[in-house]
Amino acid sequence: MNSTSPSSARQVRLMARTGVLSGPTANLAAGFVQSNLAILPRDLAYDFLLFCQRNPKPCPLLGVSEPGSTSINGLGADLDIRTDVPRYRVWEKGVLVDEPQDVTGVWREDLVTFAIGCSFSFEEALLAAGVPVRHIEEGRNVPMFRSSIETAPSGVFSGPLVVSMRPMLPEDAIKAVQITGRFPSVHGAPIHLGDPEFIGISDIANPDYGDAVTIRPGEIPVFWACGVTPQAAIAGAMPEISITHAPGHMLVTDMLNIKLSV
Amino acid sequence: MNSTSPSSARQVRLMARTGVLSGPTANLAAGFVQSNLAILPRDLAYDFLLFCQRNPKPCPLLGVSEPGSTSINGLGADLDIRTDVPRYRVWEKGVLVDEPQDVTGVWREDLVTFAIGCSFSFEEALLAAGVPVRHIEEGRNVPMFRSSIETAPSGVFSGPLVVSMRPMLPEDAIKAVQITGRFPSVHGAPIHLGDPEFIGISDIANPDYGDAVTIRPGEIPVFWACGVTPQAAIAGAMPEISITHAPGHMLVTDMLNIKLSV
Repeated sequence: MNSTSPSSARQVRLMARTGVLSGPTANLAAGFVQSNLAILPRDLAYDFLLFCQRNPKPCPLLGVSEPGSTSINGLGADLDIRTDVPRYRVWEKGVLVDEPQDVTGVWREDLVTFAIGCSFSFEEALLAAGVPVRHIEEGRNVPMFRSSIETAPSGVFSGPLVVSMRPMLPEDAIKAVQITGRFPSVHGAPIHLGDPEFIGISDIANPDYGDAVTIRPGEIPVFWACGVTPQAAIAGAMPEISITHAPGHMLVTDMLNIKLSV
Repeated sequence: MNSTSPSSARQVRLMARTGVLSGPTANLAAGFVQSNLAILPRDLAYDFLLFCQRNPKPCPLLGVSEPGSTSINGLGADLDIRTDVPRYRVWEKGVLVDEPQDVTGVWREDLVTFAIGCSFSFEEALLAAGVPVRHIEEGRNVPMFRSSIETAPSGVFSGPLVVSMRPMLPEDAIKAVQITGRFPSVHGAPIHLGDPEFIGISDIANPDYGDAVTIRPGEIPVFWACGVTPQAAIAGAMPEISITHAPGHMLVTDMLNIKLSV
């Protein structure tokens, strides 16, 4: 795939739509924003939108659909949110019931789609600045932890802040603070660096989600607010139905990562 | 008043509450964030919250109350939103019906308060950096214009982007872009500089709101998204009831301006 083509984001969506692509989207359509998805009934949409407003670091909103609409203004030409993600997760009352490639069969006219920024965008900026990203080097998922920091609740949505961790030398951590701070719509600057216990993480070698990665001598763990936070809050709220992307299987948008920098 | 005291923001609110202060809040409680207010019935709150999400530059949310609550988490110790602003405007179906010092009499259990960032915060940073702000020098209100840029609509809320204008030498405009860009929660970087016609402003000497200011030879007009935008959108939506602050009579919060910088 020609990842430098301006049409590459749409190509990825069409490959997902036609079933050609059912795997993760990492490294596809380089330069384009990939997005977390949370799809909820309209009667929960106000509480969830307010949850995102109150917790902008873990829940940086890129766009919100009209109820029942299968597109989101500005995110993708001819986007069909029911088909254009390679793999979905369908939840009933907080229980995972299916992982389909297409959610047309369970679509409802009251569903509202929330597109939430993802760390892929700032990782591209880190790599471009020569800051190594360990889980990418090691071909793993980023390690994620439930921290002792509580989110600001809204209605039925609450729960711990989930954080992702990237180990770095202090000099790279300083660069990473500067670089990711310029990307507030994809989690922004770290929320912590150094001692994991300080945010309630007792065993850095055993992440709650994703994979463990090597921490080398002299490196410190650096923690960012993570898009799993809203997923955990949704699971805890046990809505009648909710739909998310499957981990790593993101919505590839027509937005350029570079446009998210401030 | 001792404007450097950490209690000065609360002092201003108590003076408003007791009726001692009924005038504008400019230059009171220096260093503390002052906020625009929009108070709406719960049945319009989702559309308005989404309007703010879709238009973050004119509508940077600092906080949202629970329905009927007279406080907003994090904005002020013992805040009573019904009394702590020096002067309010009460609107019925988009028509201004009263400008009281207290809205306890019209309060309803379904009212939701939206606190929206205000340019006072970034003007303090501009002055601290030696960038002159003309309307402050001339003791006037900032000039504001309805631009030809449309906001992204949400439900009943729509309308033009209203912009504020500050004339500056190009070297100061460059500094101002850098400084205000660090304050995304109080309108952030300018949306335009130079030719007013480019954003549909035909007569820079006749603002739609506020006062005209002197533009000196060599200066260019610099335009920021303005908090009057949501007020105009609310007036256009003609809700049964809405409450705003009276222009210049802001909610003084316990948040420090410096904490808003990124």
